[in-house]
Amino acid sequence: MEDIKHKIFVLSGKGGVGKSCIAANLAVWLSMQGKNVGLLDIDIHGPSIPKLLNLEDRKVQAKGDKIKPVLYSDTLKVISVGFLLQDESNALIWRGPMKHNVIKQFVNDVSWDNLDYLVVDCPPGTGDEPLSIVQLLSNADGAVIVTTPQQLAILDVKKCITFCRQLDLPVLGVIENMSGFVCPKCGQKTDVFKTGGGKDMAMQMAVPFLGQIPIDPQIVQACDAGKPYVSNSSDSPAANAFKRILTPILELDNNTQKQSAKTT
Amino acid sequence: MEDIKHKIFVLSGKGGVGKSCIAANLAVWLSMQGKNVGLLDIDIHGPSIPKLLNLEDRKVQAKGDKIKPVLYSDTLKVISVGFLLQDESNALIWRGPMKHNVIKQFVNDVSWDNLDYLVVDCPPGTGDEPLSIVQLLSNADGAVIVTTPQQLAILDVKKCITFCRQLDLPVLGVIENMSGFVCPKCGQKTDVFKTGGGKDMAMQMAVPFLGQIPIDPQIVQACDAGKPYVSNSSDSPAANAFKRILTPILELDNNTQKQSAKTT
Repeated sequence: MEDIKHKIFVLSGKGGVGKSCIAANLAVWLSMQGKNVGLLDIDIHGPSIPKLLNLEDRKVQAKGDKIKPVLYSDTLKVISVGFLLQDESNALIWRGPMKHNVIKQFVNDVSWDNLDYLVVDCPPGTGDEPLSIVQLLSNADGAVIVTTPQQLAILDVKKCITFCRQLDLPVLGVIENMSGFVCPKCGQKTDVFKTGGGKDMAMQMAVPFLGQIPIDPQIVQACDAGKPYVSNSSDSPAANAFKRILTPILELDNNTQKQSAKTT
Repeated sequence: MEDIKHKIFVLSGKGGVGKSCIAANLAVWLSMQGKNVGLLDIDIHGPSIPKLLNLEDRKVQAKGDKIKPVLYSDTLKVISVGFLLQDESNALIWRGPMKHNVIKQFVNDVSWDNLDYLVVDCPPGTGDEPLSIVQLLSNADGAVIVTTPQQLAILDVKKCITFCRQLDLPVLGVIENMSGFVCPKCGQKTDVFKTGGGKDMAMQMAVPFLGQIPIDPQIVQACDAGKPYVSNSSDSPAANAFKRILTPILELDNNTQKQSAKTT
């Protein structure tokens, strides 16, 4: 993995907070900014990345003793256990050690080649999958942590920050997703899952807060249609919030480039 | 576990669909109908049941060589890994074999005594936790499967039904949660996460469909406040939908009683 400049984990203690959606859009957006990007989906039981990027019928191929990732575009390579399943209703009923082995293969045996970023979409929780990937990928830049505003989600996400601390993984910041819903008829904003919980929690746990993304039924439709909304609904409030929030991740590489230009 | 008449798993392939909320409300509601109920939370990395039932400061106690469950009421006993944590931000960074061991203890070493129902709240996915509990609790009545309507959730929930089939666990039915949001100002219904996806999927997979529960910010607030909405907002559309949907579960025991009355 020496040819990968930046390794970013997208984590959450809680499922269903939009983690895979944010990971996919982050990877697409970085690649649209001229970066070479890999997207590694290590959600073994519920791989969402193939659907999110409309790559559902694609399969991985062998290249010598290496696995060739699926190409979303010239600058975005994707690996997911979803590419290994015969049918979308197939389930991998696997215990931890088998999951560790497949993640190890995805790290060591995939021809990622030179990447500016590897974005890793992790399943919820603090079990085998996130533990394996953090141990296998050393020198990661850190984790982007996704939550929704309600206390029930915050509770699990705090555990996720504790996980990062115990494994010496820097927390790049917290994103509060599904923060408020604006009625398309009357414009009334309702805080369906409350609001502000992610921001308060980030302060309490002393980690950076990256920002809020509102609930937008267009995002749900874009996800289901396999069209990343950063490229397809690029002017929506949610897409704009998203780009503003993720700029610090893009700056990681831009700053590295500036520094290496200074040195030479 | 011979003293437990009915064993019900609440499962979902996807996180964040409201599974724990439904498990907690199912257990509370059954106990309100005069049943003796146990609620077993096997979500090791994100236990939500203590918060949902306002039992966060409670700890389990020993009773001889048995573990005493926490009492929510005279007729509802609760066990969760959350009762073993010092602090809510503590994370159990555990691999599969450790998780299997603690689930085994929760099944064998807890003094559940006589129960009409044991409701098991499982974490998302088809990995160690659901696999262990299904193997440890034989002769279960089956699984209630929770989903949200969008395709991205449906995809994971199909895997969950495949999991049930492979382990010979009957599917009692599918619940479509967060199905449509009604603006509190103008009454406009928006299908935030689409609608009907759970019903279509149940037909496609040939399993019973139990019904839809709408999005209701009061449910989110009730969950965060530790007040189960079946008992606290008993007249809301969501609470009514919930009771109608779960009646078949209550009938499982009522039918058993009628049958045993006939035999004697």
